[in-house]
Amino acid sequence: MSRLDSFIRRLEAQRTCLDHAAQLIAGMPGNVLEFGLGNGRTYDHLRSRLPGRDIYVFERRVAAHPDCIPPADRLFLGDFLETLPRAAAQLGAHSALANLDVGTGDEAASQALARALTPWVLRLLRPGAMVVSDQPVADPALEAMDLPHGIEPGRYFLRRRR
Amino acid sequence: MSRLDSFIRRLEAQRTCLDHAAQLIAGMPGNVLEFGLGNGRTYDHLRSRLPGRDIYVFERRVAAHPDCIPPADRLFLGDFLETLPRAAAQLGAHSALANLDVGTGDEAASQALARALTPWVLRLLRPGAMVVSDQPVADPALEAMDLPHGIEPGRYFLRRRR
Repeated sequence: MSRLDSFIRRLEAQRTCLDHAAQLIAGMPGNVLEFGLGNGRTYDHLRSRLPGRDIYVFERRVAAHPDCIPPADRLFLGDFLETLPRAAAQLGAHSALANLDVGTGDEAASQALARALTPWVLRLLRPGAMVVSDQPVADPALEAMDLPHGIEPGRYFLRRRR
Repeated sequence: MSRLDSFIRRLEAQRTCLDHAAQLIAGMPGNVLEFGLGNGRTYDHLRSRLPGRDIYVFERRVAAHPDCIPPADRLFLGDFLETLPRAAAQLGAHSALANLDVGTGDEAASQALARALTPWVLRLLRPGAMVVSDQPVADPALEAMDLPHGIEPGRYFLRRRR
């Protein structure tokens, strides 16, 4: 499998998991949290699939397509671990979906970042909220969900806050 | 359609066109030319699909994954329009496939670049060679090929050198 094959498969898994999580929270009010804006593609996807939801974006440095930059009052700009405590104080536990798209080329560092974020993300989530992640996330407060059809375990991660 | 949807569709079209072109040149010897290395995903795809072919890469500045950097003697480093005359002198018209992956966010500039490259690319191609491109390419020496099933016209471009 080439790197192009593998990249396409990862993007398709991401989209499938996001769409599945969006369906699962259909009956639950709440914000959406996006960790890692990047070029803004998944942000654009989330706002198209979840219209009417407030989407809060966490990003160190915005480098997205101009059409995909969130309003300033929905953007927590800076290091995740510095902005998360402020977000928890401001937003409380009212979010229904968190998307962690925090992987870089460095697998160990990406996993360590996801582990460091998890307790803070949990403080922002309502019971029953979904976590979609490109990195493994584990916590006693999170239960693993079955992945949508066609996604191999370990390719993408889907969790529900108990 | 979100930007994520559109990006996935473009990558799938690219892969389908590359695979189709690789099949079409199966009986023809010749080098492969890659314009725009980027992160090296399509380079990796081409070398996996066309083992045994010499792949020459044209790139302004290498920023690819370390596993996807071509050997120094297969890399034409610098502005395409400066390296192409040297490549034509060195390689002659012995290439069987050219992949133009030269689009940036600026559509007009990307199309202008493809137009500027085309006469030089033609000088490197054998009769019957395939051109796969993310930008429109037109020349009396090129005939448009039917796109593989499922690819809408205008999404990707497939041409054959007469």
